Amino acid sequence: MSLDLPRILAAHDRIRPHIHRTPVLTSERLNQACGGELFFKCENFQKVGAFKARGAVNAVFSLDDATARRGVATHSSGNHAAALARAARLRGIAAHIVMPSNSPKIKARAVEGYGGQITFCEPNQAAREAACAKIIAATGATLIHPFENEDVMAGQGTAAVELLQDVADLDLVLCPVGGGGLLAGTAVATKGLRPSAIIIATEPAQAGDAADSFRAGHVVPLTKADTIADGLRTNIGAPNFAIVQRHVSDVVTVREDSIVAAMRAIWEAMKIVIEPSAAVPYAAILEGRVNVAGRRVGIILSGGNVDLDALPWMPRA
Amino acid sequence: MSLDLPRILAAHDRIRPHIHRTPVLTSERLNQACGGELFFKCENFQKVGAFKARGAVNAVFSLDDATARRGVATHSSGNHAAALARAARLRGIAAHIVMPSNSPKIKARAVEGYGGQITFCEPNQAAREAACAKIIAATGATLIHPFENEDVMAGQGTAAVELLQDVADLDLVLCPVGGGGLLAGTAVATKGLRPSAIIIATEPAQAGDAADSFRAGHVVPLTKADTIADGLRTNIGAPNFAIVQRHVSDVVTVREDSIVAAMRAIWEAMKIVIEPSAAVPYAAILEGRVNVAGRRVGIILSGGNVDLDALPWMPRA
Repeated sequence: MSLDLPRILAAHDRIRPHIHRTPVLTSERLNQACGGELFFKCENFQKVGAFKARGAVNAVFSLDDATARRGVATHSSGNHAAALARAARLRGIAAHIVMPSNSPKIKARAVEGYGGQITFCEPNQAAREAACAKIIAATGATLIHPFENEDVMAGQGTAAVELLQDVADLDLVLCPVGGGGLLAGTAVATKGLRPSAIIIATEPAQAGDAADSFRAGHVVPLTKADTIADGLRTNIGAPNFAIVQRHVSDVVTVREDSIVAAMRAIWEAMKIVIEPSAAVPYAAILEGRVNVAGRRVGIILSGGNVDLDALPWMPRA
Repeated sequence: MSLDLPRILAAHDRIRPHIHRTPVLTSERLNQACGGELFFKCENFQKVGAFKARGAVNAVFSLDDATARRGVATHSSGNHAAALARAARLRGIAAHIVMPSNSPKIKARAVEGYGGQITFCEPNQAAREAACAKIIAATGATLIHPFENEDVMAGQGTAAVELLQDVADLDLVLCPVGGGGLLAGTAVATKGLRPSAIIIATEPAQAGDAADSFRAGHVVPLTKADTIADGLRTNIGAPNFAIVQRHVSDVVTVREDSIVAAMRAIWEAMKIVIEPSAAVPYAAILEGRVNVAGRRVGIILSGGNVDLDALPWMPRA
């Protein structure tokens, strides 16, 4: 079974009791600044503060009872971890969470708050996967990969479904890309519901593996992930990249200072709290990397979990 | 003509084309923390970032043409200034704004952005009024007082109208009080539409003149206004106080640390940006000064204009 629109719509029905239908907000000030019409899908208002609630609930509630009883496990930079812990608690099963030791404190606290059992590991992909494999061997838990799992992708795609239901005639959808779960779901949902809309992925140049992969035509390993956008410090997944190749028109990269400027502009103009990863699409507009003049542009604001003691424009303590 | 419900409803019709109907948001986390059901009317999302857009538009659009042509003037700590500048621009007339020299930079920039003509003065009431009188003598402009003007009060009351339209069966409405424009409008609208609802005003203890006045039975002068809640550093107006005496059940004061904690809790739980003044009602809940257990509580979040470089939990530069 592959990722397609019916699967995303089924996910939407499945998760509806457990997630918010988030609002789509607009800003006259930001529209005037760019000359386009921007429609921000506010997944910062989602349960656990990020779109990840969608995919996690869909994956956990798609398990059969016998499998579910053995629990779930994952490795995650944070939002997926909290989301999976919450989804597991909703189903009454255990969640084993492997987190890199440099994860923002707020994200570890969130996992604990939902009853997730955390194991910290070195902040690299190999260490994450090894720690997770060990837990799975011991418990029989099911790995719910943060982005390569198709039920996760289907769940993430439901944000775009709602965006397209609420806003007619979008010309363009902008989406951040880390592992590619949100992007894959967004791309399939958008192309299914509105084939004429163009999808552009955006990522930090400091973690530019998806753009490199897009140019190369195959997944290029992430060699550095030195970006403030902590949700995007991940190599794009192979199944995700296959979907990107089919549906995404371009992958553009942005500078760190643009991410901070975009984040701050959205806070100031829209009075909403978004995390750096969520600011990446608007950063691409600020840099002029995406032409939005005269176009109707949907933007997925992926999350709002920031450490208010460590905002990027604060003087370093 | 005095302030009554029909006048507030007429104001609502008058201003509707020029303001946002702001959303009412809820937070499961904050509800669980206090045991009540909290309904936040998000005037931080309002035009100019504060409820002040409502009163200013109503006052400016209530002027006859000949009077309007001579322009408008005011003295304000900031949000009313931006709101009046914007309302004047919408009507195509001049706005003369007297601002205290210690106003947050973001607020002065906002006034300039709307084409208002700023005169800075010493940060005290006497200096504000003198500077304003001088401008009025020179131009023939109409003073639009930030809170004693009844058209302003009527406009501010429209936020409560929308709140009561959107949320049934409120038991209690909490509102911050500075000069008392929002409070007067909120009280009259609430008592008109839902007489059984109790209205409680909240203010910083460090600018506790409304509470002092409420106990004394007459307006007590504000002797210090040493509060982070910059929108509430104002003595309550005489006409406003008369309305408070008639309709408001209590005025409770809160500590500065509670204001900061409340502001931060709302940012973190709800992912929205509010200014310190807007956090004062929730601070009263945090301090246990208002019993909300089992009650349906409307809270006016008055505005979202904060200087992101000077957040109260930042280390001092």
